[in-house]
Amino acid sequence: MSEYLPGLEGVPATKSNISDIDGEKGILAYRGYPIEQLAEHSNFEETTLLLLDGRLPTADELALFDDQLRKNREIKYQLREIMKNLPATGHPMEMLQTAIAGLGMFYPGNECLTGSELCEDMDYVHNMSVKIIARIATIVAMWEPIRNGYDPIKPRRDLGHAENFLYMFTGEEPDPFIARILDICLVLHAEHTINASTFAALVAGSTLAGPFGVVAAAIGTLSGPLHGGANQRVVEMLGDIRSPDRVEEWVDRKLANKEVIWGMGHREYKVKDPRATILQKLMEKLVEYRGGNISPLFETALALEKAAEQRLSHKGVYANVDFYSGILYAEMGIPTDQFTSVFAMARSAGWLAHWREQLRDNRIFRPTQVYTGEPFRDYVPVEQR
Amino acid sequence: MSEYLPGLEGVPATKSNISDIDGEKGILAYRGYPIEQLAEHSNFEETTLLLLDGRLPTADELALFDDQLRKNREIKYQLREIMKNLPATGHPMEMLQTAIAGLGMFYPGNECLTGSELCEDMDYVHNMSVKIIARIATIVAMWEPIRNGYDPIKPRRDLGHAENFLYMFTGEEPDPFIARILDICLVLHAEHTINASTFAALVAGSTLAGPFGVVAAAIGTLSGPLHGGANQRVVEMLGDIRSPDRVEEWVDRKLANKEVIWGMGHREYKVKDPRATILQKLMEKLVEYRGGNISPLFETALALEKAAEQRLSHKGVYANVDFYSGILYAEMGIPTDQFTSVFAMARSAGWLAHWREQLRDNRIFRPTQVYTGEPFRDYVPVEQR
Repeated sequence: MSEYLPGLEGVPATKSNISDIDGEKGILAYRGYPIEQLAEHSNFEETTLLLLDGRLPTADELALFDDQLRKNREIKYQLREIMKNLPATGHPMEMLQTAIAGLGMFYPGNECLTGSELCEDMDYVHNMSVKIIARIATIVAMWEPIRNGYDPIKPRRDLGHAENFLYMFTGEEPDPFIARILDICLVLHAEHTINASTFAALVAGSTLAGPFGVVAAAIGTLSGPLHGGANQRVVEMLGDIRSPDRVEEWVDRKLANKEVIWGMGHREYKVKDPRATILQKLMEKLVEYRGGNISPLFETALALEKAAEQRLSHKGVYANVDFYSGILYAEMGIPTDQFTSVFAMARSAGWLAHWREQLRDNRIFRPTQVYTGEPFRDYVPVEQR
Repeated sequence: MSEYLPGLEGVPATKSNISDIDGEKGILAYRGYPIEQLAEHSNFEETTLLLLDGRLPTADELALFDDQLRKNREIKYQLREIMKNLPATGHPMEMLQTAIAGLGMFYPGNECLTGSELCEDMDYVHNMSVKIIARIATIVAMWEPIRNGYDPIKPRRDLGHAENFLYMFTGEEPDPFIARILDICLVLHAEHTINASTFAALVAGSTLAGPFGVVAAAIGTLSGPLHGGANQRVVEMLGDIRSPDRVEEWVDRKLANKEVIWGMGHREYKVKDPRATILQKLMEKLVEYRGGNISPLFETALALEKAAEQRLSHKGVYANVDFYSGILYAEMGIPTDQFTSVFAMARSAGWLAHWREQLRDNRIFRPTQVYTGEPFRDYVPVEQR
């Protein structure tokens, strides 16, 4: 039996072609392409197809995929009614898990997935991936008006993925500059090797569960504060600090008390997370775009990042992807409790790429345990306890 | 880095006190108590509390827990409306995943779970476990009338867990003999070390996701045909065989073609699965109870089991828990596509016991991968592809 390593740290759980991290050099690549180049030249639609298919698409392939996404944005009215019956006070990630699981009931699995044979039907796998990736954005956007008591806005086919999301979310014509920032955020969050939610997708997929059940398992896993919930906590923390002049004293107090500063450091990177570097530049561009006119939250974030870097960068601890993405989402008018849902929209691409990969060389996950409980013993009748 | 073992076979993923298997001797024990003794002397309510708390309850503790379960059977009308908006043609396991995820929205997590600190509030953990275990049975039972176009039946507080389920499911006063068989089936299915769905619950729970999201992740994982879906396939297979006189020829053909015979063999046991032995005796008692008057399905199953034992027992392959449980559920009037939901009702006890254990000594699951993809390479503009 292998050694027990808590959290399976350092234990390889799968073989994968999808993404790779060099934590010493601060490199993240999808299918070999560094994230910086994808952020600069690609968009969410192309990056998603790259993750799913393993190669950059031709112009025709990309146009077809983009068209498929646009045509898969609408959801059935029954699902809208389901969403209206969910309490507005619940967490949006629970809503998303509910809606995606429910969506699966409308698309019964094909026989090769529900039978004992592995699914060789790549059309089915592709079509279900398109359905989920397109609709997850619709569902996240619809929830905002629904939970506020208003009818959701219908998706538009003339807008790109990020633009249409912002349009449906805010009800306003999206600002192309802001939409491109969101688009880049989606590219950056689309995939990140075998994190907990992707791992949950592999475990669920390994039983040949259907894609909606697999993605719903991943959403439930992402919802935890130690995983997808961190960017929400960054903005809540900035709200606690309240203003830039309170930052220095706040950071010193936190460090002295050895308390968590949300959005700092990452287990996989010894140097600065490459996604954080990209997001930091986007923040600077956004400040410029707004003519230096920025919110107190944003100002507090800039001050906190500077203060933290002075005190922590010698330990290899820098502001991470969650630190910047939360602030950018807040600047786009997305409420803090919806940040993780936006993360899920992006990560659905990675989950489904891993699901497809798992199906091609499947073995059900059935690890062992170190049993530390009672030895075999006899039952004691209730009157003798 | 550790060796890569597909499906993490033989890799310890956790330390656990909850259950233990001796596959050589054919022993399964919950908290040290052999499953045979629990099946004979205990019931689902007591076994659940044993799994959650780690010890057999006193009479007062058991009465309190039983009362809590009875008082937690009703679900809100919004959830009923949600269920009515789901398509009757969808798989009941997808319905169950949807409903449990949705249920979570009505019970926002307490602060210790949504914050960065581990939850030390065992009252919260216990109360949420009761809510889920009680309501999961209600939801499975409600789905049967709802998907057939009828209003669901309200739960009754004067009935035990298994009895109330059968009452709500069938609309008829439950036969105590049949209810006791179901009760024993629930005891037998309540826990089985780190199987795929329990593992998914650990992975989701390790991010400090809430209990509804954790159980919904486990339900999605259990829904796969390689895991919870097997007993459904046993009964479908028996339907294909059609009658006892066709069994011998059918088995020989399957074995010659090296095809799967559902419900035979188990990775964990080298000898007969102790749960299968118990279920086989229950089947015999049921035949006796019915005065030898049994269905063609049941007769076919008895013939298949005999034929398979003659041909396969020397290889350590016997009819397993799925083989017998499917037939018993069919004899109770439960449709085949609801078998896995009944499995989930039982296993919710084990999932929540493991969730609680995970919270007490948590580390987020973040295994590694063997990267087999492309080396770092430069992005190629679309016109050059």
